[in-house]
Parts: sequence; C-alpha cells; structure tokens
Amino acid sequence: MPIADAVKKAQESGSWIRKMFEEGAALKKQYGADRVYDFSIGNPDIEPPPAFHRTLVQLATEDAPGSHGYMANVGFTEVREAMAQKASRDHQVQIDGSHVVMCVGAAGGLNVVLKAILNAGDEVVVPTPYFVEYGSYISNHGGKMVLVPSAPDFDLDVGAITAALTEKTAAVIINSPHNPTGRIYPGRTIQALAEALRRHGAQTGRYPYLIADEPYREIVYEHRQVAPVLSAYEESILVTSFSKTLSLPGERIGYIAVGPRLSNKQEMVGALAYATRVLGFVNAPALMQRVVAQLTDAQVDVSIYARRRDAFKEVLDKAGIPYVEPEGAFYLFCQVPARRHGPAVAADSATPIDVQFVNHLKDHLILAVPGTGFGDSGYFRLAYCVDESIIRNSAGAFQKAMESW
Amino acid sequence: MPIADAVKKAQESGSWIRKMFEEGAALKKQYGADRVYDFSIGNPDIEPPPAFHRTLVQLATEDAPGSHGYMANVGFTEVREAMAQKASRDHQVQIDGSHVVMCVGAAGGLNVVLKAILNAGDEVVVPTPYFVEYGSYISNHGGKMVLVPSAPDFDLDVGAITAALTEKTAAVIINSPHNPTGRIYPGRTIQALAEALRRHGAQTGRYPYLIADEPYREIVYEHRQVAPVLSAYEESILVTSFSKTLSLPGERIGYIAVGPRLSNKQEMVGALAYATRVLGFVNAPALMQRVVAQLTDAQVDVSIYARRRDAFKEVLDKAGIPYVEPEGAFYLFCQVPARRHGPAVAADSATPIDVQFVNHLKDHLILAVPGTGFGDSGYFRLAYCVDESIIRNSAGAFQKAMESW
Repeated sequence: MPIADAVKKAQESGSWIRKMFEEGAALKKQYGADRVYDFSIGNPDIEPPPAFHRTLVQLATEDAPGSHGYMANVGFTEVREAMAQKASRDHQVQIDGSHVVMCVGAAGGLNVVLKAILNAGDEVVVPTPYFVEYGSYISNHGGKMVLVPSAPDFDLDVGAITAALTEKTAAVIINSPHNPTGRIYPGRTIQALAEALRRHGAQTGRYPYLIADEPYREIVYEHRQVAPVLSAYEESILVTSFSKTLSLPGERIGYIAVGPRLSNKQEMVGALAYATRVLGFVNAPALMQRVVAQLTDAQVDVSIYARRRDAFKEVLDKAGIPYVEPEGAFYLFCQVPARRHGPAVAADSATPIDVQFVNHLKDHLILAVPGTGFGDSGYFRLAYCVDESIIRNSAGAFQKAMESW
Repeated sequence: MPIADAVKKAQESGSWIRKMFEEGAALKKQYGADRVYDFSIGNPDIEPPPAFHRTLVQLATEDAPGSHGYMANVGFTEVREAMAQKASRDHQVQIDGSHVVMCVGAAGGLNVVLKAILNAGDEVVVPTPYFVEYGSYISNHGGKMVLVPSAPDFDLDVGAITAALTEKTAAVIINSPHNPTGRIYPGRTIQALAEALRRHGAQTGRYPYLIADEPYREIVYEHRQVAPVLSAYEESILVTSFSKTLSLPGERIGYIAVGPRLSNKQEMVGALAYATRVLGFVNAPALMQRVVAQLTDAQVDVSIYARRRDAFKEVLDKAGIPYVEPEGAFYLFCQVPARRHGPAVAADSATPIDVQFVNHLKDHLILAVPGTGFGDSGYFRLAYCVDESIIRNSAGAFQKAMESW
C-alpha cells in the first residue's frame, strides 16, 4: 500500500548528508574503515566531557523515585530554570524558567516552534547556504520556505532579507555559528537585522519572529563571542541543544527560550507546550534533562576541533582548494576548484558541478557533501568530526584528486 | 505576534487529561496533596523494575565511546534486533531488525507512521471512546479522523468500522488493552476486522493499514493474552513503547514494527526513517535504546495494579457507580450515574453531563477525566496510577459526592 506522496518525493531527492553518510558506510565495508576519508557527517566524535560521565553515573545511581515519569510537557521546573540562567548569560537578557521549554534536540525544537507559529502559506525566510532540513521542518507545518542568498563573505545580507519580507513572513531562521560555512554573524549584523524586522513590523503590523538556531554556540575558535539575539530583537526565539557542546547528538536534548519582551510570551509558551505534546515528543527525555541541568558550564575540548581545522587548512592549501575560514562549528565550506585536467564540464550538464566534484573525490575515497545539499552548488562541505590523523592522511588523496580534476 | 490559528483553537478546547492534571496540581497546593484524590492522569507511579536500575547504572558506568552519538535514524542495529524478537513473540510472526524503527515513545511513533502514510484528505478510522490525542496526530499530517462507535461492551464494532471505510481510508487505529475502557479485543474480533479490511482492499484496490497502538500490552489482569495483530493482517504496523511496561513515560522510548507481509515493506521502513528524521526526532534517545534492548522480558509488578483495581471496584460498588471491568491497562471507565439529589439537568444544558459530574467530583476533591475527553460523554475515567491507600481513602468522598448528586 502507498506511502505519502510528499514523503516519497522527498525521499527521492533525499538528504545529501545522510546519503553520503550511508555511502561512506558502504565504502568502508568494501575498502576498510582506515582507507576511507569520511568527512560527510557532523557527528561529533569527541567524547562528552568527564563531567558528563560523572553526572550521568551519579543520577543513574541515585535514580530518585518518579524520575522517569511524566512531567509537564515543558520539562522539569529546575531544569528550565538552569537553562534560563544559561540563556540569560548567552543572550544578555533576564529570563527565568517560565521562558523555557525543553525539547528533543534542536531539530525537535525547530519543529515545535514552527508548529506553534505557522499558518498555512506563511513564509519563513532562510539565508543560503542553509541546513537543508529546514525545508522539511517548514513544510511539515504548512509553511513556505523563502531562500535568500547571503553576502559573498557569507555574512547575512540584511538588504536581501529585508527585500524578501512580506506580509506573510512569519519568521526568519538564522544559525550562528553557521552550518555549513562556519561563519559567526557579527553583532552589528544582528542589530541591523533586528532593525529591519522592526521596520517591517511597524509598516505591516506583523513583526516576524527571529528564530536563532544555535547548537554550535560553544564551538568557536580564537575565543570568539557569538552575538546575542534575544536582547537584540523583541520577537526572538532561541532553539538550541547540547548535541555539539557536550557531544550528545544521539540523546536528543535541547531547549527553546523565548525572548523576555516577546509580545505574547505566555501564549507562546502555551503553544510550544501544546506543540511538544501533539507532535508526539510529549517531553524531552527525563534523565538527560536532569543531566544537562548540571552541565550548563561544561563543554567538549574545542581545542581538538581547532587543531583539526588547522591541519585541514594545510591539506587544502596544499591541494589548492579555496575555503571559507571557519570561525565556529566544525565544517570547512570549500569552493569547487576550476577544472584543469579532466574534460571540460558542459554548462548544461544535468549533474551540478559540486556533485561532479564530490563524486570525483569519492573515487579517491574522500567523502564530502555537495553544496547543492545546502542550496549553494559552487561549494562542498567537509566535516572535521574525525581524528586528526584521518585529516592528515587524506592529503595524498586530495592531491591525487586535484591532479585528475 | 500571533501563534498558529489551529494551535490557538486546539489549545482552547484543550486536552481534558492535561487540564485535570493541572487543576489537580492547583488543588493539591490549596488543600494539601494528601487531601486530593487525583485519578486524572495515566502517569505510572510504580517504580521501574530493579532490572532497569541495574541496566541503567551498568550502561552509564561503561559509557562506551560513541554511545551518545548519532546512529542511523532507525536506531541501533542490535536494539532493533532485540525489539524484533519481542514483536515476533508478541505477534506470532517472524520478523527481524530490518522491520523495526525505534521511536520517541508511542506518541512519537504514531506521528512518524501517520507522516509516512497520509496524503492530504486521507481518512483514519478511530473507534470511540478513544485517546483524544489521536485527533491531533492525524491532523498534524493532513489527515481526517473518522470516529466510529464501539460495541456496547466496548469491543470493536467491526460492522460499524466496515461501514466507515472509504477509498480515502488510509488506516484504522486500534488500541488494546484499551485506554480508557481497559478492554482487550478478542482474537476473533481482530480476525473479523482483518477480513473486513481485506474485503475492502480487494473491492477498492486500497488496503487500509491497521495500526496497533499497544503500550499497555503487558499491563493485563488474570494472565489475559493480547491477541496478535501483525500475524492477523498483512498491512499492519505495530507502535508501542516501554512507558507503561517499564514505567518510563518521561524517557520517551518505543518502537515501530511493520508486519512481515506488508506489501511495500522496504519502502515503508525508508519512509518511517525519513519521517523520524524530518519531524525532528532524528532518532530515539541513544542511552534508553540500549537500556530497553536488555529488558524485553522485564516488566513492572502488575499485581500492584490488580490490587488497586480491586480496591477501586469496591469503592465504586459501594458508591453505586457502574463501570467497565478492566481487563488490562490501569483505568476504570465509569458510567455517569443518574442524578437523584441535585436539580435535574436540562437536556439542552451547554455543559455535558459527564463534565458536570466531574466538576461535582472535584468539589469533593476527586479528580477524574470526563468521557467527553475520549469522545463519549456518558462516562468518566479514573486512572489508578496512585497508591492503593488513596483509592481506599477516597471511598468517603465518593459516597458524599453521590449523596448530593
């Protein structure tokens, strides 16, 4: 019997990230894991910090009565309070636990927020390149994604975003540090965006929500600061998780925090609780809620990612592949190099150039994700969630690949 | 700024269960927890079995490298294998891990299944009384719920279900043991339903999926057996969780298993994986996946629920309140008694009789859920997920309530 048409269609186009992840698994089976250079998926391989292990064992051992039972859909009160303190520090606002809804990772949180705010046909503005799953999250709840190119340096193009706003714009989603470019948007950019949204709101009567998707906030280099969003714009909503900060992506634990000056704050928290319930999350996993509440100051050792980044830059420099300097997150967004050795690519080729190049890399057992998977076909993404030795050992393969491209 | 219209509307009508749960919390604050008889929510209060605690501590202590990272959206291979063995035993089929998709509780699993199968306007048949959240789950994914009354003894009315099938029927959802009636559907009823669905499929070319929502399978009395579904009908899908079996509702862990003879099995598992991903679940929580994989034979001590049921029956018999004999689950579905002492209720009263009676009970500090919350206004539900002493102590309050009704 049939599956849903939309699901069938979406599966055929598929997620490039997951596709490469699965092809990688097949290649490793064929050639041996140590011969495949898999830079496809952003699956943090650094172990959670020691404090995580201690807290997990402690809470598992205590196993307080009722600790695995239902709580309010928004989460445990003391956990929400801990998250509010963290969000207050990060975003330079004063919020309390009543502003927070615990969620099943940031992906769950984004679905909850979009369910809570979208009417059929509402538009959500997303700057490109972008995490391609946003498209599914938006269409899940009847919304329409409006893609807006970023500036050439991959900062937000506030002018372009402004031009894309309409009376149907329900929200703008930003992601800083950014997947796949590693950019951190400067404070002045966030301010300019806030002003543009305010102007649009004053003109149309509808102030778009600004959704800040921030799972990489703690993964930053050279002690960079990620600009606050909740303090910059009234109608803003933070969605984040501990997947990257604590290397817990499989545990699905994160939180949503609404800005202190959101116009209908209480109604919004009610709607988020409702969406959490009816989408079937019901609540964020109980044990992990209590674990992360004790770990709001902990994080993985980012210097490991920094060393890998630097090693990778060397490899790419040597191979002659240009890339965006990552300020945060753990991705290198690289330009597809000009073709020199292989046959020239016809402009009307059905296969985008980035997909061709990624396929070419795959012939050299290097796995990357084509920029097409992020709405930007001139690029490809390398995730450095792998041991530094794999990065260093890939140098020869990259050079060989370039010699025949 | 606005929240979604549908969310606003749904919140206003609200879930009666959650509403009573929250009113209960307020009453307890006012009168003291020991003076309020809260039978509103099905939140298992029996602690998880000792094997759960041992396994949790063991896995937390081992904390194997990578054990909190991403895995395939469908879940860990060895966990899926363990679930397949359990489902094979329970449903008298031979399935393997490839038939299983791990999910974030049964609520998450139902959303995943409905996302995977529903096209806009597709119909899903639900026998009443019913778990009212089904309505939200179905409308989340563009479906239309078609309610069909059950037989007077709350067995499925296969004739009525058959009459409700159309060319738009995508699925029928059944729940056995049943919330709120405690009925277990006999094997012959499942067989008759399977035959009806097969006949409908042969006539129309569309065989509706039969979705078996089974979180209460292990909560049964007098060693009753819950009839298998996957072996009875080709196009059937099992959705279940460990929320009740192991008293873990806050941890959100369950699984989906597709029948071995499903016509497009591989495509279906792919669609379920996709739906798990894009709805933002991504995967079922990693640690709890590995915990439940070791506990497929464990369960809470059901005799505790049995004693409570018997105590509650005594209380209700004394008060003169008729109820359905629970064969499984932990609810008493009671008839609203005829009014004797208070003013007669006008037939055109805006407040349904069950809501009036539940409000009357609340005046005596007894919390129940009106049958309206399950689509059946002649009844109300009492959940016995509370200490036996609370049940026994409520006897006086029930009698007083009846004396002034």
